[in-house]
Amino acid sequence: MDRISGFGPEGGSSILPELISITRKFFKLKKYELGMKKEKDTKGLTAEKDEFSEWFTQIMLKADLADYTDVSGCIVFKPTAYAIWEKIKEECDKRFKKIGIKNVYFPLFIPEKLLAREEEHVKGFAPEVAWVSQAGNKKLKERLAVRPTSEAIMYPSYSKWIRSWRDLPLELNQWNNAVRWEFKHPVPFLRTREFLWNEGHGAYSSEKECIEKKDAILGVYKEVCEKFLGLYGMIGRKTEKEKFAGAVFSEKLHYIMPNGKAIEGPCFHYDGQNFAKVYDIKFLNKDGKKEYVWQNTYAISTRMLGVMFAIHSDDKGLILPPKIAPNKVVIVPILFENSKEKVLKKAREIKNELQKFSVILDDREEYKPGFKFNEWELKGIPIRIEIGPKDLEKNQVVLVRRDNFKKEVVEIKKLQERIDEVLKDIQKNLFEKSKKIYLDSLTKAENLEELKNAIKNKKIALTPLCNKIECEDILKAETGGAKALFIADNNVENKSCVICGKPAVYNVYVGKSY
Amino acid sequence: MDRISGFGPEGGSSILPELISITRKFFKLKKYELGMKKEKDTKGLTAEKDEFSEWFTQIMLKADLADYTDVSGCIVFKPTAYAIWEKIKEECDKRFKKIGIKNVYFPLFIPEKLLAREEEHVKGFAPEVAWVSQAGNKKLKERLAVRPTSEAIMYPSYSKWIRSWRDLPLELNQWNNAVRWEFKHPVPFLRTREFLWNEGHGAYSSEKECIEKKDAILGVYKEVCEKFLGLYGMIGRKTEKEKFAGAVFSEKLHYIMPNGKAIEGPCFHYDGQNFAKVYDIKFLNKDGKKEYVWQNTYAISTRMLGVMFAIHSDDKGLILPPKIAPNKVVIVPILFENSKEKVLKKAREIKNELQKFSVILDDREEYKPGFKFNEWELKGIPIRIEIGPKDLEKNQVVLVRRDNFKKEVVEIKKLQERIDEVLKDIQKNLFEKSKKIYLDSLTKAENLEELKNAIKNKKIALTPLCNKIECEDILKAETGGAKALFIADNNVENKSCVICGKPAVYNVYVGKSY
Repeated sequence: MDRISGFGPEGGSSILPELISITRKFFKLKKYELGMKKEKDTKGLTAEKDEFSEWFTQIMLKADLADYTDVSGCIVFKPTAYAIWEKIKEECDKRFKKIGIKNVYFPLFIPEKLLAREEEHVKGFAPEVAWVSQAGNKKLKERLAVRPTSEAIMYPSYSKWIRSWRDLPLELNQWNNAVRWEFKHPVPFLRTREFLWNEGHGAYSSEKECIEKKDAILGVYKEVCEKFLGLYGMIGRKTEKEKFAGAVFSEKLHYIMPNGKAIEGPCFHYDGQNFAKVYDIKFLNKDGKKEYVWQNTYAISTRMLGVMFAIHSDDKGLILPPKIAPNKVVIVPILFENSKEKVLKKAREIKNELQKFSVILDDREEYKPGFKFNEWELKGIPIRIEIGPKDLEKNQVVLVRRDNFKKEVVEIKKLQERIDEVLKDIQKNLFEKSKKIYLDSLTKAENLEELKNAIKNKKIALTPLCNKIECEDILKAETGGAKALFIADNNVENKSCVICGKPAVYNVYVGKSY
Repeated sequence: MDRISGFGPEGGSSILPELISITRKFFKLKKYELGMKKEKDTKGLTAEKDEFSEWFTQIMLKADLADYTDVSGCIVFKPTAYAIWEKIKEECDKRFKKIGIKNVYFPLFIPEKLLAREEEHVKGFAPEVAWVSQAGNKKLKERLAVRPTSEAIMYPSYSKWIRSWRDLPLELNQWNNAVRWEFKHPVPFLRTREFLWNEGHGAYSSEKECIEKKDAILGVYKEVCEKFLGLYGMIGRKTEKEKFAGAVFSEKLHYIMPNGKAIEGPCFHYDGQNFAKVYDIKFLNKDGKKEYVWQNTYAISTRMLGVMFAIHSDDKGLILPPKIAPNKVVIVPILFENSKEKVLKKAREIKNELQKFSVILDDREEYKPGFKFNEWELKGIPIRIEIGPKDLEKNQVVLVRRDNFKKEVVEIKKLQERIDEVLKDIQKNLFEKSKKIYLDSLTKAENLEELKNAIKNKKIALTPLCNKIECEDILKAETGGAKALFIADNNVENKSCVICGKPAVYNVYVGKSY
């Protein structure tokens, strides 16, 4: 069952030593993190959540979510992780379609001269672009960028397609793969050089309409992240320094990881007419005059999988919110020689009746129940059903929740109903927990000393700041790398910027981040 | 409405001349094919189906299915085309999941040394590989191939993950983009340098199980192509010369295009232990012995969109089978000044009642009904509903089918029911038509003369052949480019190979092809 242990010496593949050396080099993992011990020792987690980086790597590998490959900084999304991504896509996509957004597919490649057109934009992405310069044995006349984002390939088409106000709004979206060859330490899901995402690109005939779409779109992301991923997050606008390359303003959902670092989730960028001017996207308005369109872009990426795995899981392994768990229930029959057949028969009956929960029946006879309990806890199945000969006599089962390990005895005839309730409760509980952890890590800082202390204590501090980029640069240096995460509010009467002491412009959440 | 006409000089974009020159150069289009005339002249098709290449290009551009971009040989999949691809994905995917296939995502990039491992495979793909050799300003130590197909990146993981018979079958699938930088004439949908597809990769503990999966998988493809795309096709095994690079045998669905050329649809490859030996994919069998796994791969790609657009459509424009048409009905109200409000009110009511058909209500007042009829015929909406003041009085509408233009009067209260029937009938009719066209283009050839004649007449000829690759080479030269499409049967008693005259081994369908 444990495919991860394939990393071990028994794997027998001649590329393994090389592969391990590559992954170790780029992901800076120690031997035991790659599952180099023998099978028995490495089944469960050997790191606790406090040792975040090790723990997270082990969850990813041992709960069968992802694996490394020979391509540095890129991962395989294994079936469980990919099924969750499909669910996120599906839930966002149907909401997008309801508000008029249509899906399209633009080429993966962007000719260099197109990418170079928007100065801020290219400055933001050029250091991370993977370049194709050869096809077969032929050198290409012009290098092609593997899309880091698709503005530069989409907007020339927008310029062709949009003629008059009747063509607006033009609200197109892509679900695709993108590549940013970051040289920072890659982390599975959280920072991978190739990632999956949606990129929505809207063009409008008025600034008002363009900005108004923000609430609908961030609303979709927030709803999916709250209701399905069970994650509490805060929407906030980025400072000038931190906004998207080319945008007028950026708003994002922000999450806080178990190690106290903030991480950005889904985002919305209002681009004004910046790109329209560069890519010449004009329309004839109702008065017969030519105007540039107003544009926005928005995205959610596979990073959210990592955020969710990290926030909910525990020292025993993965915890998944029921609504996105591909399998919601595992049945572990307690098998003794003389009653085996009877118990298995009942277990199969129960499995059939509970089909809507995508039940796994673990009828492997070569493993003990305790071993199985650990394995399914590691893999994050929300509910475990135990059934043994004594339960059978009483027409009952034992139901165990993955989130808090609470056990209860349930009559078989009431099982489906009870599972429905418990799944709902797990979903709710995980969200509430994530909210509490989030709010507990917030604090306030009125001066630099308080801010430094807060950062040292791994807190996110509400901090008055002015809006000068230099102050943010100094802030980063003074705090050992913290930054302005997002603007909370403008209630800064009588408050001073904690850096320059001049009147503050806004209160900003400041913290370390991914 | 007509975004395609954005290609025209009014577009105003400074990259347009360049873009047009690039697309013209690579797609060898004439001016009028790119919609260079003024809007009125270019609304409808100016080429008939007999002039296949021009007609197909016009359908693609004018029915808003795709557009060119600045990347040669790559297209934009516009909303209608992409929505159909989503439907194909959805229908195949749910059937795959039912038979145990799970979705995953592997990296886009393949290190050169991995791709080079399987000799046949690399020989087949190397001439078409797009290579990434630089990221940001750094030259990569090893070139990365943009996946032309994923064997070389997936199978090292299979080698790690598969340990024993318990890990088998391992049946994983990806829906992704792939790149083959073909230097042949690119054709939108049919041959694009980047395409979308599924690539399924199964590994099994026995040859029997591996080959048996063929019928289930080709069955999924056949069902989706017949029931949804309305396309009749034939499944057949490729000759040695034509099989997949690295496979033991390949079977594919074959279609015949309106110009008489055959085209390959979805495929299944049985790879035996070829890749297993190269990528060292072994398992411990039930007897405790190590064996190589048996493997298969299978795919359906966005090429099928082009096949479907081409086979069903006519001189008036696109025809879509109702089951995959994103909008199944368009309502065109006949508006006169004195009854406009009443008619529009009723049209809106009808639209609301017919929501399940994703109805378009064309209430634009600046266009005449005739103009609208042409436009929606061009865009392939399966049913048009016309409603004018006289219809209103009689509580009826006029219903017009896109496939054969038949008109009928329908009582409004029976409209939903009637639409359901007509849509079913259109779906059936298109399939039957495609079957007739297919079967009508088949013929037989018992000797080279007959074969040459058949090919000249744009037929697909059932031809006895031996199994020597040289004979296939000669066949190609003698017929001006026709090839062995697929093996039909082995009923060749007393028959001779039409090339070498030696005893035939099988009857093969021979024809020109994409």
